[in-house]
Amino acid sequence: MKIVVDGFGGDHAPDAVVQGAAAAVREYGVKVVLTGDVDKLQTAFQKAQLPSKNIELVYANGVIKVEDNPMDIRTAKSGTSMGVALDLVKKGEADAIVSAGSTAALVVGGSMVIGRIKGVKRPALTPIMPNIDGKYILLDGGANLECRPEMLLQFAIMGGIYMNKVCGVSKPRVGLLNIGTEVQKGRELETEAYKLLKETPMYFIGNVEARDVPLGVCDVVVTDGFTGNIYLKAVEGMGVFMKRSLKRIFERTPASKVGYLLSQSGVKDVRRQTDYREVGGSPLLGTAKPVIKAHGSSDAKAFKNAIRQAAEFVEGGVIAEIQAALSE
Amino acid sequence: MKIVVDGFGGDHAPDAVVQGAAAAVREYGVKVVLTGDVDKLQTAFQKAQLPSKNIELVYANGVIKVEDNPMDIRTAKSGTSMGVALDLVKKGEADAIVSAGSTAALVVGGSMVIGRIKGVKRPALTPIMPNIDGKYILLDGGANLECRPEMLLQFAIMGGIYMNKVCGVSKPRVGLLNIGTEVQKGRELETEAYKLLKETPMYFIGNVEARDVPLGVCDVVVTDGFTGNIYLKAVEGMGVFMKRSLKRIFERTPASKVGYLLSQSGVKDVRRQTDYREVGGSPLLGTAKPVIKAHGSSDAKAFKNAIRQAAEFVEGGVIAEIQAALSE
Repeated sequence: MKIVVDGFGGDHAPDAVVQGAAAAVREYGVKVVLTGDVDKLQTAFQKAQLPSKNIELVYANGVIKVEDNPMDIRTAKSGTSMGVALDLVKKGEADAIVSAGSTAALVVGGSMVIGRIKGVKRPALTPIMPNIDGKYILLDGGANLECRPEMLLQFAIMGGIYMNKVCGVSKPRVGLLNIGTEVQKGRELETEAYKLLKETPMYFIGNVEARDVPLGVCDVVVTDGFTGNIYLKAVEGMGVFMKRSLKRIFERTPASKVGYLLSQSGVKDVRRQTDYREVGGSPLLGTAKPVIKAHGSSDAKAFKNAIRQAAEFVEGGVIAEIQAALSE
Repeated sequence: MKIVVDGFGGDHAPDAVVQGAAAAVREYGVKVVLTGDVDKLQTAFQKAQLPSKNIELVYANGVIKVEDNPMDIRTAKSGTSMGVALDLVKKGEADAIVSAGSTAALVVGGSMVIGRIKGVKRPALTPIMPNIDGKYILLDGGANLECRPEMLLQFAIMGGIYMNKVCGVSKPRVGLLNIGTEVQKGRELETEAYKLLKETPMYFIGNVEARDVPLGVCDVVVTDGFTGNIYLKAVEGMGVFMKRSLKRIFERTPASKVGYLLSQSGVKDVRRQTDYREVGGSPLLGTAKPVIKAHGSSDAKAFKNAIRQAAEFVEGGVIAEIQAALSE
C-alpha cells in the first residue's frame, strides 16, 4: 500500500506533513510518497530527527493556492505538489492521495485528473463528524453547490457504502437533510430526492432535521454542497463555542479551577470527541481512486490519521463496491 | 399597549400561556388579550391561582395544527385561537401578536391577514440567537425557502433596523451567510445579493462563514429560508449536544460530581446563555404589525419573554422605520 501526500498543502506544511507521514509509516506499516521541494522536505526530516524509511520523495514545483483558479490544477499548476501527487495516483504509482491544500483544486483534480468512477455524476466531499454516540458522514460537504435529485441519490449510495465498508456500520441509516421530517417538506430538490431515495434498497429513514443530526439520528446525511457546507461549518463553529464556554466555566473562580481538576477526564473526553484531528480528513467519494482532503490547519496527528483513513479507504474496497452499485 | 397571545398555540397551552401572560402583565405593565376557549382559560387561571387583572379573554374555536394547510388560517381556520388573534391585530384592537402555534400558519396569517409593510416582498422569520459575546439575528429562519437577491437585501435592511431599534446596536454589522468569505463565493443568489448589499449605506461586512457566526462575527446574518433553517437547527442541535456533554463530564465520577458543585455558577451561566426561553421568540419582520413566533415548546417564562419582546418591538418603532427605509 502506497499513499501519496501533497507535501506542501496546508497551513503547517511541510513540517506537519513530514511528521505525520513518519508516524503513519511506523504505526500503520504503509509506504508514503511526499511531493514537493525535495530539499525542503529533507530539511524537515532532519529538523524533526525522523527516519525517512519507507518514505519516498518526489520533486514538485510550488503549490496551488486557495486563491488560484482550481481548474489550473490540470494545466498551469499540474507541476505543483498537489498536481504531481494527483498524477502519481492517476498513473497507478500510488494507491491514494492525501492533501491539505486547496479544497476546490483537489475536487477538480480528483474529478478530472484521477477521474470519476463510471456512472458517477459528481464526486462529493464527505466530512466525517462526531455525534453524541459516535460519528456520521455528510455528503456533499461543499464540492457541488447546486445539485439535482439524482446527484443526491448517488451521494446516498456512495455514503452508505463508505459507512459500511470503512466505518463498519452494517446497515447505515440514510437521512435527507431538510427543514422538517414530513414527506412534503423542503424545496423541489428535497421532494424529488425523497422520491428517488425511498425506491432504493437502502435503509432510508426519510427527512432529518439539522437539530437531530448531532444527536445521532442517522449515519449518512445527504444534502447539496451549499447547504452541507453551511451545516458543517455551523457545527464546527458551535464546537469552538463549546470549547470556549468550557474554558469560561472553569476559569471563572478559584473553586471552578479546582472543579476542572476534578472533572478533567470528562472534559478531555469531550475535547477528543470533537477534535477533527482524530478523524483525519474528508474523503472525496466518486473518484476512481481514493482522495482524502485533510483540514487546511492539519497538524502532524491529523496528517497521520488522514493517511490511516486513506489506507482504510483502499482496503475497504469502497470504489469497486460503488462501481458495482451504480452499474445496477 | 395591548398584546394578543394565541391562547392555545404551543405544546404547553393554555397553562403556560396563562402563566406567562400573568407574569408579563405584572412585570412589564402591558395589557394582554388571550384567545381561545374562555372556560378553559378561566380554569387555567384558577388552577394556577393567578389574577386575571389587565388580561382580557376573547372566544375562539379550536386550534390550527402544524399538519393543517397553513393557508386555511385566512378561511376555514380563521375562527381558531390564532385566527382570532390575527384578526384583533388587523382591526387595531391589539398592537402585536404572540403565538407558539404553527409557524407556517403564522407566517401566512402575518403576511396575508395582518398584511405586509408597503414595499416588502416577503416577511422573514428572525430568530434571535446567542453568540459567545451576546446575540445576533438571522433572516430568514424559514419563512421563504427560495429567495431572490432583492429579498435578501430587504432582509438585511429590516434586520439592521430591528437590531438597532430593539437590541440597541448602534451600527449593526450585516453579513451574508456563505461558504467562504471571498467576494465571488457561493451560488448566483449570494453573488447577486452581495452586489446589492455593498451598494447600501448599511455596515455590510461581506460574506460570513457559518463557523464564525456563533463566535460573534456579525449582528445580522442574511440568507434564504432553507439555508437559514438548516443553520438555525444545526446550532440548536449542537446546543443540546453541549448540554449532554456537560452532563457526561460532571456525572462521570464521584470527583467530577464535586467538580460540578465547584463550577456550577459558570455552568448555569452557559446554560442561561443558550436558553431559548430567555429570548422569547422570533419576530416576523415585514408585516404591518408586530408578529412574534414563540417556540412550540415554550413554557411560562418563554411566553413572558415573548410578550416583553412584542412590547419592545412595538415601542421600538421598527415598522415605521422599515417603511421609511424601503420607500427610499
